[in-house]
Formats: sequence, C-alpha cells, structure tokens
Amino acid sequence: MAKNRQLKLGAVLHGVGSSMSAWRHPDIPSDASINWPRYLEQAQLAEQGKFDFIFIADGLTISEKSIPHFLNRFEPLTLLSSLGAVTSRIGLVGTLSTSYSEPFTVARQFASLDHISGGRAGWNVVTSPGEATAANFNKGEHPDHSKRYRLAAEYLEVAKGLWDSWEDDAFVRDKESGVFFDPDKMHRLNHKGEFFSVEGPLNVARSKQGRPIVFQAGSSEPGRDLAARTADAVFTGHETIEEAQAFYADVKRRAAEYGRSPDEILIFPGIGPIVGATDEEAERRYEEIASLASVEDALLYLGRFFDHHDFSAYPLDEPFPDIGDLGTNSFRSTTDRIKQKAKENGWTLRQVALRTMTPKGPFVGTPEKVADRLAQWFEGSAADGFIVGEAVPGGFADFVKYVVPLLQARGLYRSEYEQDTLRGNLGLPFPVNRYAAPVAVRS
Amino acid sequence: MAKNRQLKLGAVLHGVGSSMSAWRHPDIPSDASINWPRYLEQAQLAEQGKFDFIFIADGLTISEKSIPHFLNRFEPLTLLSSLGAVTSRIGLVGTLSTSYSEPFTVARQFASLDHISGGRAGWNVVTSPGEATAANFNKGEHPDHSKRYRLAAEYLEVAKGLWDSWEDDAFVRDKESGVFFDPDKMHRLNHKGEFFSVEGPLNVARSKQGRPIVFQAGSSEPGRDLAARTADAVFTGHETIEEAQAFYADVKRRAAEYGRSPDEILIFPGIGPIVGATDEEAERRYEEIASLASVEDALLYLGRFFDHHDFSAYPLDEPFPDIGDLGTNSFRSTTDRIKQKAKENGWTLRQVALRTMTPKGPFVGTPEKVADRLAQWFEGSAADGFIVGEAVPGGFADFVKYVVPLLQARGLYRSEYEQDTLRGNLGLPFPVNRYAAPVAVRS
Repeated sequence: MAKNRQLKLGAVLHGVGSSMSAWRHPDIPSDASINWPRYLEQAQLAEQGKFDFIFIADGLTISEKSIPHFLNRFEPLTLLSSLGAVTSRIGLVGTLSTSYSEPFTVARQFASLDHISGGRAGWNVVTSPGEATAANFNKGEHPDHSKRYRLAAEYLEVAKGLWDSWEDDAFVRDKESGVFFDPDKMHRLNHKGEFFSVEGPLNVARSKQGRPIVFQAGSSEPGRDLAARTADAVFTGHETIEEAQAFYADVKRRAAEYGRSPDEILIFPGIGPIVGATDEEAERRYEEIASLASVEDALLYLGRFFDHHDFSAYPLDEPFPDIGDLGTNSFRSTTDRIKQKAKENGWTLRQVALRTMTPKGPFVGTPEKVADRLAQWFEGSAADGFIVGEAVPGGFADFVKYVVPLLQARGLYRSEYEQDTLRGNLGLPFPVNRYAAPVAVRS
Repeated sequence: MAKNRQLKLGAVLHGVGSSMSAWRHPDIPSDASINWPRYLEQAQLAEQGKFDFIFIADGLTISEKSIPHFLNRFEPLTLLSSLGAVTSRIGLVGTLSTSYSEPFTVARQFASLDHISGGRAGWNVVTSPGEATAANFNKGEHPDHSKRYRLAAEYLEVAKGLWDSWEDDAFVRDKESGVFFDPDKMHRLNHKGEFFSVEGPLNVARSKQGRPIVFQAGSSEPGRDLAARTADAVFTGHETIEEAQAFYADVKRRAAEYGRSPDEILIFPGIGPIVGATDEEAERRYEEIASLASVEDALLYLGRFFDHHDFSAYPLDEPFPDIGDLGTNSFRSTTDRIKQKAKENGWTLRQVALRTMTPKGPFVGTPEKVADRLAQWFEGSAADGFIVGEAVPGGFADFVKYVVPLLQARGLYRSEYEQDTLRGNLGLPFPVNRYAAPVAVRS
C-alpha cells in the first residue's frame, strides 16, 4: 500500500442509474438500460473523476415480474470490452456467475479483456441467486447455497491456475532461431476436483497486471469466507457505519487467518450518494425519485430477493409477514438484513417494500456532508473505498463534480492515476506465478 | 438483393496474419497475436476498405505442439466488442463453438454485442474439432462428428428462439403510466430437446438487424446441411474455381430444398491474396514467407488437422502415408481434401506439410490479375464474396490499396456502405419475429 492511504472509488454503471424507477424520470432516456452512448458517457465521466473502476452488475433470469431495467440490458463482458476500447486508465469490473459457466471460458474471456485493456480487468464472482436461473441453463435444479460456494471456491482455484499457465517470461519470440516459447515455462493445470476437471493450459498469456482482479460480492458466512481466502476486493452494502465496521473487521480478520495481509483485500461498500446545494435540496431529490416507485413495483422488487416470492398476497399495512426460511438460498445476506430491520423497526410490508425499492443511505446532503461521511467511514475502518451508484438522475455527475474535488483537497483521493493497471491503482501486490522460480510463498 | 449484384468482403484478423510463420518476418511484431493496436489498425483499415465484416477465428485447446500464434491470442467476443467500439460500420463476426458452451450465454453475448454495435454482430458457428478440447471442459470425451452436428442444430434453434423472446415493439416505455413493456409481446421459449432444456426469455431485446448474422464454417456433409437449413452465410475454402462452383451449387440447392431462397445464404470462400507490381514480385513475396516455415513446424501444423497426429514418425520424402480414418472426427472436410490431393498429385509428406503450412491459392499476381480472378469467381457462381486473410506481411493493406479500387471501378464492389447494419450491407432479409402478427411464413 502507498504511504498515504487513499480511498478508492468504483462506479456502478447501468444506463438507468441504480434507482429502480428512474426510467420514468423526465431526465432519463426511457431506453437507458440499453443505450450505448449513455454508458460510454458515464464511463468517460468516471475516468475524468479518476475512478479506479467501473462496475457492471448482472443477472441471468427475468420474468414478467422483473423490474423494468433488468428486462433488457447488456451482458457485462461485451459491454466492458466495448468500454475498455474507449477509455485508457479506468478498471473494467463485471459480474459473472460461477454456477452457470465454464471456468476455461470465463478465465479466458477475462484474461483476454485484461490483455486488450492493458491490465484493467476485474471479475466480480457471484454464485447466482434464484431457482429460476437453472431453467435457462439445462439444469434440473439450482444448487443450494452451500454447494454453490464450494463450487465457486473450486472454480476460482481453476481460474487462477489457468491464469498461471504461462510464466511471465515464457514467450521468447526469437525470430532468428524460430523459438517462440520456452516449453518449460508453459504449465498444464491438470485439475481434477469435486466439480471440475480441466487440463489446460490456457491459450492466453498473463497480463500486465498478472491476472484480473477478483471481486467477491456475497456477504453471507460462506461468501465472507470465500472472499477472505481468495478475493482481492469485496463489494458489500451497509446502512450504518457500525455495521460496515463490523463487516470490515470480520473480513480482514478472516483474511489474516488465511495468512494474508489485511492490505491485500479491499472492502468496498456500495453507496448511493445524493448531493444538493443544501441538505434540504438533497432530501427533495431523494423524495422525487422515491415517488416514482409504485407499491406494486416495489413488491415485485422485494420478491426478487426472496426467489420471486409473491408479496402481493399479504396486507400492505400490517407488520412485515413471517415468511420463514424464504430467501436463505438466494440473496442470503440481503434477505437476512431485510427481515432483521423489519422486525427491529416494526415496519409494515409497504414500508419494507418502498425502502428496499429506493434505499436511502447515509450519504445524502451537501457535498461537504457527503465528503465528511466518506472520510469518516474510510478513516474509521469501515471501508477501503466505495462503489458509487447513481441514486438519482444526474447524481453520479454531481458526485464527480462536487464531492470528488473535496476528497482530493483533503488528500484522501488521487488527482491523477498513479499507474496504468487496475491492480497498480488499487495498490495491490503483483501476483507471482505459482510456477516461477525462486518459488514465492503464496497460497 | 440489390439489382446490381455486388461482391461482399470480409477480413480475417489475427495480428500475425494468416501465414503460420509470419511472426518470424522482420515486418511483423513478434507479439502480433496479442497486439491490440495492431488489431485496431487492421480493423480500421478494413473499414476504410468498406469491408462488410471483420472475422475472428478461434480454438479451444493448445499444446506444446501448437503453432506459435495459436498459443497466445485474444478471445473472439472480447476482441470483437473492443473493436466494435472503435469502428462504426463494419460487421463484427467471430467463431464460437456449440460443443462447449451454453446457448443462453452465447445467444446473450452475441445479442449484447449486436445492440452495442448498432446491429453489426455475426456468429460463426463451429462444432470444435479435436479430442483435446474436451479435457478443458469437464467432459470425458469429445462428441463424435455426427452428434456434434445434431447438437449444433438444436443449439441454433435455441439461440434463434431466444433472440425472438421480445417482439420488436414489446417495449412500450410509457413514463406517464409506468408501463414499461407489453407482456403479450414477451415470449418464453420453453425448449426441451435432446441436448438442451432452456426456458427463457432472453434478457435483451432484438437488435436493429433483428438478430446476429449466423455464419457456418463446416464443409462436411452435415456441415453443409446445417448451413443450408440455418445459416445466413458460409465460410468455406477452395483451391480451384471448379471446386468452389460445385460447393456453391450444392449449398444453394440444399437451401432451396429447405424452402429458402438461394439469395438468403451467401457463400464466402476464404482467400489469401498476394499482390505485386508484377506476377514475379507476387511470387517472390510468396516464396519469402514460405521459406520461413520449418518442416518441423509444418508437420505440427499438419498434425493439428488430424487430431494432433505425430507426422514426424514418417519418412519425409516418401509418398504421404496411409493414415486410414484419422481426421474424420476433427476437421473432416479439410482432412479429406488433404488426403485426396496428396493421392492425386503423388505428393510426399514434406510437400503436403509445407503446402498446408503455407497454402498458395489462385489469387497471386498483379492487382489486375487478382481482381480478374475475383470477378471470375464471383460472376461464375463460385462465390458471393470472399473472406480475405493476410497471406504475407502487408498483404491485407496492399489488397485494400490496390485491389479494392479495381473492384470498385468495375462496379463489382461498393464505394460507400449502403446501410449501417451488417445484415443491411450483406443484403439479407430482416428476420421476422416468429411471434409477430400477422404470422409470416418462416421455418
């Protein structure tokens, strides 16, 4: 890590913004979820703001009940590759599920993106919530939560192994002698495990940053464990600094137990900042976007976290219903939190649905107030950085324009990229190839 | 089709060029196979030449015996997506195997590329030769040739079905009422077949060109049949006009038998033109590149078509050995042709290997001679267009500079793009959505 610890920033891009009803706002093109020029503009804006990376979320199933902007959207790898060609420094991070893909293909696609972009790729590893996904992928049933995480762990082992297929100096390329590569520096993985059997080698070399950055986005117990063992960064979400601090301490402790330095894994809470000239103006912007959400849409959106459970069958203005174990095999950490908050606060179903649909985090107010809170979280061991979503139309541009300069003025955030790889900008160590001599001690 | 039938052109891009030993040439960067600026330059050159599309080939397995530039190369979807962002009119066609992927993912990635690029995507469907591939994909064995083609046919049915998930006017996007889409125009595929079970719908709408263009590259019996039934275009390869004419007539006839217009399927022989100020200069350029190939590399390259058979065990200067059925389960049409030509001409193993490594087609000579031959093939019902590879360093740039203007002057080739989609430029009909009313008669 650099001597002056600085906070890192990522930007969640989806054309519509992160508010679920934003497509209805007059300032948002109604086809924003598949509007390429809009993605391009946002990515370039993030690069102007010296963000470490853009982040593309994903999902593998839709139904009549899906929230509008999930119905029709770009696939992350194709979108990131396109955006990589028209940016030069910003990292390119996308979600891809280990439950419905082949490790050889995924390792290869991210490695290829990593090369083309000059070492800027990152992969957000998820295990896919939702039974419905299996029906799109020739599978009888969705694997349960615990099996999905065992599979993800093995999948990541395979991917990292494939990324080490070639030592960094394997390609000799001597035109005179005709020797293209040193066969002693090409390695077959020959992996045979519980779920996968993959021989290798991968048909692409290591990149400028060694290998793509691995994000992990599950916050359940197995998710935290997987992250602590194998991830470079964690995408999480918290409503209070106390909750964020507890999570931060827990993941760093787990990483240390696996023999890793706490600096080798960065914690990124997702935030939806809303700024205004005054706190009142910021509040007004929140209320404006919240008012676009119908309670029907909010119930559908809530249901999505609970395996598309039909919440419209319950009375709206009575306490959040007892739904038992529902949700534990999909977005477990989110559904646990929703249930707990509802119980603690005595919220009705309507309140829970509308708050879930348009969450309002602690980062709402004047630019100074938002910058203060970010500094507080960063300096208070609640975050190594933040992944910024667009909570209200224009909210991301406002963040870049008004909040970023304050963070820079406080010496908390870069004014220019330090490096040209994502790994370099994040301050993460270069991963030594497992086969390289002398053998470095790396798990 | 337009009234004045014009020939179509594609450009095979791989940084090294299509000659197997070109990396040793002084004019070629030795890392050309993963040199992004080089790909970018070639794609932009092809667009300046008003080419219909660029074409990215692929392979899913390598070994110590692989030809140098297959060892380390970009993955087609990430490369095409990157190139799409820095071009505006040229089509983006890439190879992807149906034997080792999921139709939902592949249909989605090509659809996403199709949207991002404004309707310029094309998918070259292959079934993957080579037993070794299975070992990278958790499969015990490589499916045999006939099973691979049954699987590919079903896979394509699924992909085309998923591409019709949304009717063209399904997205209403009425901000006032909050109605985002018309549920009657969203369709679940509910496919259950021999190999695949896929529910849908796809989470991306149809593109400006309806759906990606489907290329097919296998020339064996089942390959021709699949192409005739389902492909928009065929990538083939022939050494003589007679052979090309026979293939052309056969595929068009098969298409007619499936109730399709012969104009709905375009035949593209791959060519490696080499031009010079004189025929002798062109010959000299061929000899220069051929001399860079060692016989050892040529034997390895030859072996690749025959499931990595070790040809180094046979005497070099005796007639091509009898190897029985070898090759019939990998690149069948290519291996059949190699065996047949060797027999007809009484070639030795050395001759076969060197000719395979550095093929010399009929398009070698002055620009006028090459343009004459292209016109002859095009007007003689041997081709609807050509896919141009770089046979010698600088050969593609020379083709654009010297041959393209001759074709334009003869009225055989466009001087400006007619349309902004790949389908439009190829003159292929817009595919009506299967669910659209009134129901159009389409298989």
